[in-house]
This record gives sequence, structure tokens and C-alpha cells, in this order.
Amino acid sequence: MKAIVKPAPGPGLVVRDVPKPVCGPADVLIKVRHAGVCGTDLHIAEWDAWARGRVKPPLVLGHEFAGEIVEIGSAVTEFQAGQLVTAEGHIVCGHCIQCRTGNGHICQKTQIIGVDRAGAFAEFIAMPATNVMKLDGIPTEIGAIMDPMGNGFHTVLTAEIPGSVVLVLGCGPIGCFAVGIAKAAGARAVIAVDVNPKRLKLAEAMGATRAVKPGPEVEAAVMELSEGNGADVVCEMSGAPPALHEAFRCVRYGGRVQLLGIPAGEVPVNFATEIIFKGITIYGVIGRKMYETWNQMQRFLRSGAFDPRPVITHRFPLDRIDDALAAIKSGDAGKVILEIGS
Amino acid sequence: MKAIVKPAPGPGLVVRDVPKPVCGPADVLIKVRHAGVCGTDLHIAEWDAWARGRVKPPLVLGHEFAGEIVEIGSAVTEFQAGQLVTAEGHIVCGHCIQCRTGNGHICQKTQIIGVDRAGAFAEFIAMPATNVMKLDGIPTEIGAIMDPMGNGFHTVLTAEIPGSVVLVLGCGPIGCFAVGIAKAAGARAVIAVDVNPKRLKLAEAMGATRAVKPGPEVEAAVMELSEGNGADVVCEMSGAPPALHEAFRCVRYGGRVQLLGIPAGEVPVNFATEIIFKGITIYGVIGRKMYETWNQMQRFLRSGAFDPRPVITHRFPLDRIDDALAAIKSGDAGKVILEIGS
Amino acid sequence: MKAIVKPAPGPGLVVRDVPKPVCGPADVLIKVRHAGVCGTDLHIAEWDAWARGRVKPPLVLGHEFAGEIVEIGSAVTEFQAGQLVTAEGHIVCGHCIQCRTGNGHICQKTQIIGVDRAGAFAEFIAMPATNVMKLDGIPTEIGAIMDPMGNGFHTVLTAEIPGSVVLVLGCGPIGCFAVGIAKAAGARAVIAVDVNPKRLKLAEAMGATRAVKPGPEVEAAVMELSEGNGADVVCEMSGAPPALHEAFRCVRYGGRVQLLGIPAGEVPVNFATEIIFKGITIYGVIGRKMYETWNQMQRFLRSGAFDPRPVITHRFPLDRIDDALAAIKSGDAGKVILEIGS
Amino acid sequence: MKAIVKPAPGPGLVVRDVPKPVCGPADVLIKVRHAGVCGTDLHIAEWDAWARGRVKPPLVLGHEFAGEIVEIGSAVTEFQAGQLVTAEGHIVCGHCIQCRTGNGHICQKTQIIGVDRAGAFAEFIAMPATNVMKLDGIPTEIGAIMDPMGNGFHTVLTAEIPGSVVLVLGCGPIGCFAVGIAKAAGARAVIAVDVNPKRLKLAEAMGATRAVKPGPEVEAAVMELSEGNGADVVCEMSGAPPALHEAFRCVRYGGRVQLLGIPAGEVPVNFATEIIFKGITIYGVIGRKMYETWNQMQRFLRSGAFDPRPVITHRFPLDRIDDALAAIKSGDAGKVILEIGS
Repeated sequence: MKAIVKPAPGPGLVVRDVPKPVCGPADVLIKVRHAGVCGTDLHIAEWDAWARGRVKPPLVLGHEFAGEIVEIGSAVTEFQAGQLVTAEGHIVCGHCIQCRTGNGHICQKTQIIGVDRAGAFAEFIAMPATNVMKLDGIPTEIGAIMDPMGNGFHTVLTAEIPGSVVLVLGCGPIGCFAVGIAKAAGARAVIAVDVNPKRLKLAEAMGATRAVKPGPEVEAAVMELSEGNGADVVCEMSGAPPALHEAFRCVRYGGRVQLLGIPAGEVPVNFATEIIFKGITIYGVIGRKMYETWNQMQRFLRSGAFDPRPVITHRFPLDRIDDALAAIKSGDAGKVILEIGS
Repeated sequence: MKAIVKPAPGPGLVVRDVPKPVCGPADVLIKVRHAGVCGTDLHIAEWDAWARGRVKPPLVLGHEFAGEIVEIGSAVTEFQAGQLVTAEGHIVCGHCIQCRTGNGHICQKTQIIGVDRAGAFAEFIAMPATNVMKLDGIPTEIGAIMDPMGNGFHTVLTAEIPGSVVLVLGCGPIGCFAVGIAKAAGARAVIAVDVNPKRLKLAEAMGATRAVKPGPEVEAAVMELSEGNGADVVCEMSGAPPALHEAFRCVRYGGRVQLLGIPAGEVPVNFATEIIFKGITIYGVIGRKMYETWNQMQRFLRSGAFDPRPVITHRFPLDRIDDALAAIKSGDAGKVILEIGS
Repeated sequence: MKAIVKPAPGPGLVVRDVPKPVCGPADVLIKVRHAGVCGTDLHIAEWDAWARGRVKPPLVLGHEFAGEIVEIGSAVTEFQAGQLVTAEGHIVCGHCIQCRTGNGHICQKTQIIGVDRAGAFAEFIAMPATNVMKLDGIPTEIGAIMDPMGNGFHTVLTAEIPGSVVLVLGCGPIGCFAVGIAKAAGARAVIAVDVNPKRLKLAEAMGATRAVKPGPEVEAAVMELSEGNGADVVCEMSGAPPALHEAFRCVRYGGRVQLLGIPAGEVPVNFATEIIFKGITIYGVIGRKMYETWNQMQRFLRSGAFDPRPVITHRFPLDRIDDALAAIKSGDAGKVILEIGS
Repeated sequence: MKAIVKPAPGPGLVVRDVPKPVCGPADVLIKVRHAGVCGTDLHIAEWDAWARGRVKPPLVLGHEFAGEIVEIGSAVTEFQAGQLVTAEGHIVCGHCIQCRTGNGHICQKTQIIGVDRAGAFAEFIAMPATNVMKLDGIPTEIGAIMDPMGNGFHTVLTAEIPGSVVLVLGCGPIGCFAVGIAKAAGARAVIAVDVNPKRLKLAEAMGATRAVKPGPEVEAAVMELSEGNGADVVCEMSGAPPALHEAFRCVRYGGRVQLLGIPAGEVPVNFATEIIFKGITIYGVIGRKMYETWNQMQRFLRSGAFDPRPVITHRFPLDRIDDALAAIKSGDAGKVILEIGS
């Protein structure tokens, strides 16, 4: 089958034929229809320090996808061929204290498809049945981006949103999803912040009450919309150090800061004035709660309360992966997806 | 000043002149503009068993109102004459464990205005400043019904609403408020149930996904909208015994039942099949959380996310209290308000 | 192998040879050392209405046990022969909304060993590896009763215990466990109630601050130890209708009632005065949270903070099951265990 | 009356006569028996940068105390002369969103006695009745240190303690209290860390499972006692930057870090590896929850489950305040109290 492959250590990807994966007894084999391209894929393509430390080529990339079941492992009872599905890309141990208490997203033995084992930028992928979710009416182009949407749902819905003023710092695809999720979950107001006007437009399309560039306008908007109290919830989705300080400055006393964006290196923090005296709570977000977050997503998507499609800005066939990565690198893209099969 | 008074034990109310209340050092004196009429007022007017056991005539009725501050007690610093305000009508002790831990709504020394002490169906009322809330842009006709709306907010927002299927049993004014609150807080679907088609129309105006009469349609609608799982949250607002059983039947395994409606007498319950085997949580709702619920209400009202006005069906001047009570008694009314001053 | 079997519909059990179970690819085969005997086993032995409606003979009984792994299924990686283990006896579907969100204890497709499929009153049992827990130093006689202890942990630790006054109604084995768990978790005081003086002695051995018979002494003890506020948490473990009303009477305003005991038939409840006006929360307890409760148990057992052994009053070999059931039926027993292998 | 006074800007304190405070209508006048001396008093005595920026001399110091009510304001109904009491030293506005929702500890208009207004190092103090708590059997020497004990209760009991492995970094008086509180609340194990062996002895006296100096032993002890998982809860009570990193290193994936110690200046943090990838929650602790924390303290103290007295190492009369401060400055003291009246 055709797949996008990191063939060897070093920059670059190739599209080439690889063996079709074997469907193990506890697996289902899925014919991929759509796949989402992510910043992580760009890191692997460019072979940055993180990728060099983690990825073992040759490797089929891709961790966001949806498609059709074409084969069922002998021990699998809950699926049938022909069903449209997506999957959680974190394959976890199932035995550690985290896995046993609903926190599989921080299992220390996690293997991520497209990073630690063969991924979804291919015509077929074999997945453990435990990780597979039926779409039941959700289109595959949306199913293909439920992984990053799930990051957004995890970030937003682990805070108390109804009636809250929510500040979203960083309007990449996950930040834009967070804007829409916060609105759908009853936020009083959502202030979206990004340096890029195109991304601010996307945030507005997703329902932002106010979309502003970094600067004094951010705090002004927050204070205006919160009657001077500050944001009840801040979602830091950018990883930019100044945004971290903005988060601590704009959150109200006793509020909550959700951290998803990954800052490079260390950031100096004044724990006294930024955290302790404000009596705030901070939560580090990684992955999706398995499988509470997936359940929440299915509900919002099936009811139509949340529609991620305005965030999808680019679509490419599999063999144009370089164009897909270039779109991401430009900083102007929303979500970029690959159209692989049908 | 003019007031609606229960003059002596026995049925009936009179409109008559009473002395204007004195503003104590910790009080504010409020010129009443609008007041809400409630089933409780009807009980007192009709002098039913509950009223006979609790109310000590002569008494000015009325516990829902909003108006303008006209005088400030000597020890009060946070208010000024001319401000438009409403007030929590439960005057609590402030010292018991409930009051000291954010549960003043279940203080055992509560005095309710219009029930245990002089109420708001009058040109003026004196209120402890602690109980008074500024309207800051919320119209007084809405401020006047924040007490029963607060029951609705307390009922709905003590459950987890974003993405949930919510069943509201009973579409009196508080049930209709609950429908609108659940929608504004991100419910996936709201199924509203009442015997009265006029009330079902109100529930639809407040955003009910489905509005149905009691019967097999209820469970059918819940199951359809929840993919066969049952309602995540049931708000029982009717007090009707069959509705209680409907609540337990329709709530999903592990779901939550909020009880606000007051059944008369005892109701036989099968604890095993209705509660324990379903692993559900039940919460008894009374009053409004002091003052968390008020804060939530102000946010939803000021953002425009929730508008209670479709529920207001009748308006009367103070001296037509009998017509107001008749409207309530008919069972066809939504919220009935008195227009007292301006 | 030797096993305790319900051979056919009708009262009675037999000890007889049955085929040794086959270890499937996802299973482990366990040589049973100790097993706990439970009221459920008595119901099946006596063939009461519940048993007639659910159990399909012939069936090996027993759902509480611990033993040694002697064989590993081909797909199982996390266990080795020779390990001492116990297991959760509820075998759940893994796919429903309950299973997917940490609530497998209320999965609607649950199969219970010894009830719906072959149980542990036998020399060997095959169990899905997902359900198996390593003992790692916990003795097998304790491991054998972690199932009912888990009911106690689930009941107690889903309430907030540190500093709380806890009332435990019913001092059968699970009630006695609950007493000890509440003490170990920092309860300010635990009042234990039972009609049987022998059981009250067991409750005292587990650390009850006060152990009293039903009657006015119960409320008196609760009020004395709570400074007149009432119990913060009530654990209803008896299923006796008068105990339910005692629960609602003794819980403080805003407190929490945990329901584990199963009343027969319907119980009339005054929802207004017993639940709603008190602003309480009620929670229906069934099974053990999978696997949060197991994790909690392992911690309390391994640290020595909780020792269930005082509750074990009787030990029998496998072929004296009738004596074991008679001990339970007498009402005087604490926990009864079978010593099966070594 | 005699009082300890900061007479003017600059280092040093004096003991001198000042006017007895007047009891306002909403106040009670308290004859002080015992008072606690705190690091904050040392900062004011030494007139450090923080003190220079906040304190306006002349000022009576002291914010931790207990004593006997000797006079009641005209509007106060719930107290009587002769009662022994302590008081929350944060006098808050009562009107802001924090005060209205149970978060008065982060009211932005807080006035602290002994810092912003006349304090308790004096024969008498007038306190708003709202802030006063009856001791009802708790000795005044314990009542006098309920303010810092309350910091410990707030830190520990806002995490889930029963069954948890708790790491306490810094064994000053509040750290030592935290050790004892965690044990009393059912912690599986408490690891206490300090550079000072005398303080480690105090931590052991309060029940620490292990008391170790900073270094590799800390992580080793945590891992040993948590079966390699890490600490469920870390209480950072030292404010030392290396302790912050130790907190993030030793907390388990998905665990909770409670921050009470105040680092001077900025501390560089690797948000990715220390917080986000670990999926942890961080909570900034300040003051005591008003008044949930006080209620919890009263329960633990009255039941005898927690006894802070081993932490009290020094007692001085009022006029030996310089010796009291020297004891604190030495770093060897536990809690230092003043014996003022009787």
C-alpha cells in the first residue's frame, strides 16, 4: 500500500509502497479515508531535536485519521466490517495506576501511532479494537480530526465553563476548536488571542466574542467582559512565554489556567504574585481522557452544538504531504487534512 | 404605604395601608418596582395547612421583587440611593455550619420575607444589606423574578450540563427557566414534560428540543436523543409522584436526579431498582446557593445567554392581586408579576 | 477438580467434580486458595425468587477469592505463573458509555462470576486478565475478601471523610469494613448501628467510636458527637426500611447518604422533609469502581492503615459449605471464608 | 493597655502603652490570652522591603491569637462575655465575587490585623463578630495558633488525602502541622523534608513516616513508599526554588502540587516536562477558606485526631518579643507563642 514514510534519520519524507499491516487478533484493520496533519508531523519531517530523540525510522507517519473497517481480529466482537470509525492514537498499557483510574492519557508506557509505531498516513492501519470509536454519522473528515479536537475538549471541559469568561491564548487549530467548544458549553464570553490576523478570523468564525492581538487590548477585553474580575478560565494553547504571563495576569483570583501549549525550555515565573497570591489552579493538559473526552466529543458533534469544519482550511491528496506541511509551516493554516481514500 | 396583607388567620388577602418599614443600621430601604407572584403566595392566600402552621398574621406578603434603593442604614457602605437592586429573600443566621460553609440556603434559622417577616408586595421593603444585589443593567422586571430563576439555576447548574441530555419534568415557571438555563449551559438536548399544552409551548419558547406530555413518549424521546443511554440529568420540578418514578426510569445508569418539586405526603420508592442498581446520585434542591447561584444568574443575564422574559405571561397592578392569584391557580400561567412602582 | 455447584433449579448445593476450566488467550488460570462466602451465595443456595430469576444451573458458585496464577493466556503479557492475585468478579463489556467513563460497575452487560458464569468455589478459576489484580504482599485470606471490602471502600470513599461524623447503619461484614475504612480515612467519629450485639462487638473491634442498637440512642449519639449538627455522611448498609428513615433523620442538612443495603420491595419516603428540605445528596452504591476502588484498597491494605481480619469470624474447608452458609444465616457471623487450596 | 508596636518606619519593635481599642457596634472586644508569633512579624520587625511597602506605622503587631470576650457590640447577638474565642485575622469586604462565593481568602480588599490595622500583640483587640470563632473546649494556646494551622489545613485538605502518599517540603511550623493533618486525614505515608534536623524531629513527632534532608533520598523515599508511582500530593511549604523542582519531580503523573511557600523572585520552570507532560494540577494556597477551613480545624481539634502541641517549642511573655523573634530567626524553632493574659 501507499504511505508517507520517514525513511531514515534526517530531514524529509517520502511517499512509497509499504506492506499492508497485519490485523492481529485484538485489532481491526481500517481503510483510511481522511487524516489530519499536525505540527508533530512537521517536527518529524524536519527532524528536529525532539524527533531525533524519539523517532526510529523507517516509520509511517500520521496519528489523526478516520476510515472504514475492512477486517476484524479473531478476538474482537464489538465491530463489523463496513463501519466508519476513528481511533485514539495513544496505545496505553492498561495496567498502571493511571490507566486503571481513568488517566490513560498519562500512561508512562504510551505508544503513539505515527511516532512510536506505524501511523495513519497510509491506505490502511491496524488498530487495537479498544482504541477504536464508531463515527455513527459523524463524517470521516471530522472523524479524522477528533484527536486534536479532543485536546481542545480536554482543555476546555476540565474547567467549569457555563457562565464563565474564557480567554484562549493561541488560535492554531486546537485554540480555534477551544473557542468553539467554550461557546457551545455556555461560556459567557470568549476572548481569543493570536498574532496572526488569519487565525483571529478563524477564531471569530468559531464564535469568539472578541479576537485580539497580543498587547494591552487583551487584558482590557478580559476586564471589560468580566466586570473587572478577570477571566474565570484561561486556556494557554500557544506555548509562547509571554502568553504564559498573560494567562497569570488575566485570570481572576481563584480562577483556573489550563496549559496545553508547550513552551521551549524554561520560563521564569513569579510564583508568589502570578500563582500563590491569586489562589489559582493550574492544570497540565496532554492528550485526551480515555475515553471520557471521546464521549463528550461525540455528544457535541452529533447534536450539532459544535462544528469544527470552519477550522479546516486546506485539503491535499496523500502524495502532496510536502504542500500540507508547508501550509502548516506558514502559520496561516487552520487544520490541514489529507484525503486518502473513500 | 400600600401593601398586600394577610390580615388575620383564614382565607383571603387585603390591599391596605401599613406603616412604611424602618431602615435599620445594617439595612437598605428599597422602593419596590416589580414583584413576582408565586405558588407560595397562593398557599398563604388560601390559608392551607402549610400556611396555617407557619404564617403569623398580620403579614405583608411577597418574596420576589426588585426596586430602587431610597435609604441606606448607618452601617452600610457598599450601596447608594438610586441604585436598582433585587435581594435574596432568605435571611439566614450567618453563624451555623451551613452558613459558614456556603450552604446558607439550608440554614435552620432562615426567615423568609413575605412568609416569616414583612414581604415585598408593598411600596417599600427594608432588607439587610448582605442580602441585596445590584442589578447593574438587568431590568427590574427580570430582577423581580431572580428568586425563582435562582431555584432553576441552582437545580440545573449543580449538575454537569455541557453535552448532557437533560429531562425537565414539570413546566411551571421554574421548570421553564430550567429548560432555558440547560440550553444556555450547553445541554445536548432538553426534553420538557408537562400535562398542560400551554406550558409545553412556553418550554418550547425557552428552547426545549422536545416538549411532550407524560406517557410513553417521554422515555421514547429521552432514549432517542441519548442514543439509548437515558438522560444524564433529570430535573424533577413537578412534585408529582408519577414524575418521580419517571425520573428514576429515564435517568441513565450513573446519572443525576435533581429534586425541586415537593410531593405531598409519602411516595413509595423501590430503592433497589430505582436508585441503587442504577448507581445514580440524587440531590435535594432548596432555595439558591448564597451567593454562588446569584453570581451565576447575573452572568447569564448580563451576557444575554439566558432571557427569562418569554416565561412572563401576566402583569397586574398591586391591587389586582386576586387576579394574579387566579392566573396562577388556573395552571395556564407562566410567571405572573406585579407592577408596583417606577 | 472439586467445586461447589448448584446442580439444578431448587434449593441446595453439592460438592462435586467438574472439569477444570480452560484458560482462554486473554485469561489467566488461577489456583484458588481462599474464597469468601456472601449473602448472595445463600440466596442461590436457598433458591429464592431473585436466584430463580437470574441463575441458570448447573453453576459453580463463588465470586470472592484469591489464589495463585498457574497458567497464562497467549495474549496476556502482564502476569506470570506463581503470582498471587485476586480479581474483580464483574466481567463488563468495556464498550458502553459506563465502561468508557470509569463506571464499569454499572455496565448493563455485566456478567458476575458465580452468578452468571462459573465461579470461584472451586480448585481453579479462569479469569480475564483485565480483571486480575496482583496481591504483592497482601495475604490471600485478605485478597479473598477484597470484593466485599471494595463495596465498603466504594461506599465510604465516595464521600468526604476526613473530619466527618459518619453513621454506619448495619454491621454485617461490609458495614464492619465501612467502620474501619471511615476511621482509617480520618473520620472524626463513627457511630455503628445493628440489632445484633455480636456484630456491634465486631464494629467496635474495627474502631467504632460508638456502637448502639436501633432506637433513640442512635440520633442521640450522632447529635452528641456532631455538636448537634447531624452526621456528615450516613452509610446505609442494612437494607432495612427503618434504617433508611434513620439515615434521613440523622444526616445533617447538606450531608450525604450512601445507599448500599437493598430493601425488599418499596419503601414510602417523604421526599419533602427527608430529602429536599434537608438539601442532601444520595448516592446508590453498587460493586466497586473499576479500578479506582481497587487501587484505594491496595493502598490502605499495604500501608497497614486498614486491617479487615477482625471481621473474619469463620473459616471452613470447601466441603463444609453448608456450615459456612449456616453461619451466615445465623446473623451472628462476620466474614466467612473457605480455605480451598494452598 | 500594653502592646507590641512598630513605632515608626525602620527596624525594631517597642513594648509600650497604647489606648485600649473601642468595641464598635458589630465588634467584640477580646482580652488576649495567647498569641502566635510568625515569620511575618519578623519581616515587620526587621522592616524588610515587603514591610516597607505595606505597613504604615505606628501599628500594633500580631495576627494569631485567642482570648476571652469582655465586651459585645450593640449589633452582635451570637456571643457573650466570658466566652473563649479565636478569630480569622483577614477582614474581608464581603461583597466581591470572591467573598460571595466562599473565597474570601482571596478578597482583594482584605485587611489583615497586625499588618494593615491594629493587631493582637496587646492586652485587648476589637474584632468584627463575623471573624470570631468560639473555642468551646479548645485551649487558648491552641486557639492562638489556629491561623497558621489553618494554612496547613487549607493546604492539605484541598487535596484528596485518604490513602495518598504525601510529600511535605519544608518543616517550619506550618509544614509540621501539614504532616500531622495529612496523617490524621488518612494519608498512606507522609515524607517530610527539611535542611534542619531539629525540624525533622518535629515532623517525626507529628507523625511523618519518613523525615529526610533534601537530596536524592527524597525521591528514593517517595518512590519506595508509593511503589514507584510518585507522591499523590506534594505540599510545598518552603518557598525554596530547589524544593519547587523537587515537587514537580516527585509528584506522580496526574498528581497534585499545593503551593504555600513563597519563593523570592522568579523561578525558571520547564512547563513541558515539569507540569504539562505530567498532567498535574497545581493550587496556590493563601490564608484559610472562610470559613470551611475553620470548621474542619474545629472538628480535628475537638476529636483529638490532630494535636498541634508538639510543634510549640517556645513560650515568652509579651515583653520578650525580641527573644521570640530571635528564636524564629534561628531556624530551629517550631511554633513560638506569647503568653499575654489569663
